[in-house]
Amino acid sequence: MPTPERFGRPDAESLDRQDDLAPLRDAFILPEGIVYLDGNSLGPLPRRAVERLRTVAENEWGRGLIRSWNDHGWIDLPRRVAAALAPLLGASADEVAVADSTSVNLFKLLAGATRLRSGRRAILSERDNFPTDLYVAEGLAGTLGGIELRLVERDEIPDALDETVAVLTLTHVDFRTGALHDMETLTAAAHEARALVLWDLAHSAGAVPLALDAWGVDLAVGCGYKYLNGGPGAPAFAFVGRHLHQTFETPLQGWMGHAAPFAFESRYRPASGVDRLLCGTPPILSLAALECGIETVARAGIDSLRRKSVALTELFIRLVEEECGGHELHLASPAAAARRGSQVSYHHPEAFAIVQALIARGVIGDFREPDILRFGFAPAYLRFVDAWDAVTALRAVLESREWERPEFRLRAKVT
Amino acid sequence: MPTPERFGRPDAESLDRQDDLAPLRDAFILPEGIVYLDGNSLGPLPRRAVERLRTVAENEWGRGLIRSWNDHGWIDLPRRVAAALAPLLGASADEVAVADSTSVNLFKLLAGATRLRSGRRAILSERDNFPTDLYVAEGLAGTLGGIELRLVERDEIPDALDETVAVLTLTHVDFRTGALHDMETLTAAAHEARALVLWDLAHSAGAVPLALDAWGVDLAVGCGYKYLNGGPGAPAFAFVGRHLHQTFETPLQGWMGHAAPFAFESRYRPASGVDRLLCGTPPILSLAALECGIETVARAGIDSLRRKSVALTELFIRLVEEECGGHELHLASPAAAARRGSQVSYHHPEAFAIVQALIARGVIGDFREPDILRFGFAPAYLRFVDAWDAVTALRAVLESREWERPEFRLRAKVT
Repeated sequence: MPTPERFGRPDAESLDRQDDLAPLRDAFILPEGIVYLDGNSLGPLPRRAVERLRTVAENEWGRGLIRSWNDHGWIDLPRRVAAALAPLLGASADEVAVADSTSVNLFKLLAGATRLRSGRRAILSERDNFPTDLYVAEGLAGTLGGIELRLVERDEIPDALDETVAVLTLTHVDFRTGALHDMETLTAAAHEARALVLWDLAHSAGAVPLALDAWGVDLAVGCGYKYLNGGPGAPAFAFVGRHLHQTFETPLQGWMGHAAPFAFESRYRPASGVDRLLCGTPPILSLAALECGIETVARAGIDSLRRKSVALTELFIRLVEEECGGHELHLASPAAAARRGSQVSYHHPEAFAIVQALIARGVIGDFREPDILRFGFAPAYLRFVDAWDAVTALRAVLESREWERPEFRLRAKVT
Repeated sequence: MPTPERFGRPDAESLDRQDDLAPLRDAFILPEGIVYLDGNSLGPLPRRAVERLRTVAENEWGRGLIRSWNDHGWIDLPRRVAAALAPLLGASADEVAVADSTSVNLFKLLAGATRLRSGRRAILSERDNFPTDLYVAEGLAGTLGGIELRLVERDEIPDALDETVAVLTLTHVDFRTGALHDMETLTAAAHEARALVLWDLAHSAGAVPLALDAWGVDLAVGCGYKYLNGGPGAPAFAFVGRHLHQTFETPLQGWMGHAAPFAFESRYRPASGVDRLLCGTPPILSLAALECGIETVARAGIDSLRRKSVALTELFIRLVEEECGGHELHLASPAAAARRGSQVSYHHPEAFAIVQALIARGVIGDFREPDILRFGFAPAYLRFVDAWDAVTALRAVLESREWERPEFRLRAKVT
């Protein structure tokens, strides 16, 4: 990276010219004039998904009708998408199921985990875990009875791993700060206490290298519509390590997870391995879009993606420091790249209004309660000039205090 | 209906000319040369869904990106689809949630029902209920402990409603025979025993008039991709009667069912009423297609649809009797239209191969174990000539014994 007195847009352009991943941007359809730093909330439209959706609707559904379950392979689509995803997780295809939402998958896996450790009463998590994950755990505990959700602070986790813990469930990348848990170490610590681990990979899959098999991870879930670019509400995924395949049970027993889905047997017999996590009929249109998203990211390779992600976030942090100093922005993310996911967050008392002002300038990041500005750096399609342009806009918003305008202070439903 | 010596194709054409619903066929894209009698498995492509999917992908996802949750109303889409569906169910919009799969919704509602009747240990159903429904109930019972799935024959249901039954769960239209349960009477009988009822409307919604409110139904689930034409694996729906809104709880607590979905509160507070059944992020592409399917059916009105459905199935049964007598076909469906859904089924020892031979001739029905030929008559797009053409093809297959050909005897994965 060049280190001139002041890093200018030409310097960013020069980094883009040297970027091996630069051509991948063209695999996405991105609107003109927008710097999109919210791909960690909803990834953009892969170019191939446009044609694929048309084909699935008009040829497969329209002309093939019911025959497309065989003729166009709908019945195998969940497994095909899982196979495309597995390398991004450091997992085997037969350990990954693509189905339902992250919440529903979390419920399945937490329920299965408490059953495998039936003498133990606690689901352990951290107080700052993604709220939905806590709702799901709370809902399961209330349903089962005899199970409690135990919440501790981040640094208390290792000590809280005692003989009452059935499963430790954490989100790998903190959704507010982007802080990374050390998955390998915490997994080992949980195993030391004979607890299972369940990782939520919502902000990891497609952005951060993962080695679920090598790290001995038991269970994981994740989201299809963030760094995997599967489209709004894309189906989610679940991972069950092979060492649990003989014993793992799911409470949600549907026909797609039956050993013989078309035999219409009156009793449930689970499909082998992770296929038993398939439950009802999958939403084929959304699943087809997800396949396009995953294939687009997977062909770049996760190590290249991570290298670029780190370069982008490092540049952004440096430029904010240089260009926006003295404006009450405090880095909420870890300063060390190795401890950070693919996002950069800042605290600011006017975070909400600043995010709105940035959006009005075409720089889309997001706000998270109570005072977080969050910028996602999806390496598959972002450029170094995007980081530069975003900081330039941020400086302009801060210097002009345009976040004081009333229209930026109105709370919309989604931010 | 004219009653000539032998009912010919011109007679069917004449019925089509008199059919007020005939123009509705044009609202669907149907392949040339196909008689589609499997809309009870997967409804065809509504014409408006083609454009809608393109718009949702290219404009909303592609150009709007994350902003479309507000700007294009994605956040309200589940509620909008529920409001379009409610009149077809005889329900209010605030009693219907569109989310997840039928299996997952069934799990939510069965779990909620057993909690509302916590002193009672049995989920009562019939042995011939749709197998997946039994798997879901079995999975829930195994998860909760202290709950059993009790199965009886169809005619034993009233007597089995004792003080141990928490909830009676039945499928309204039998998936094999098309036999209709008397929902009003069985609901009253369950209530007499202080049990709740949960109806699976998979083969009813969009085909059979329903009056969930008037009949005092407690709970129901159903499928979006059959008579509602929502596309493969379309999201499903759940109904909770208003009398349970204050007390009903779901085990699957996700962010979309939270009272303040964007506040990221650490504790779950259920949204009011049926909205708490929304769980994870819905698959927007599939949900948008479902909206098109429901709107297309709803504008015909369920009473007109039912009248035509009855006329189609009556004609089909009569023609099979007249044209295909002496071929070992035995009507599996109730002979009385009032006791039948929108399908006609026959037993035949060679049912599987006959269905394959019919498909090769462009008449798509389906086979169900062990010996059922099943023909769905979706009134929104089928014509009287389709019934006539189907019987003509059936007679040709039976008379030529072409079902003996080896290629029709190979069991495919989906039939």
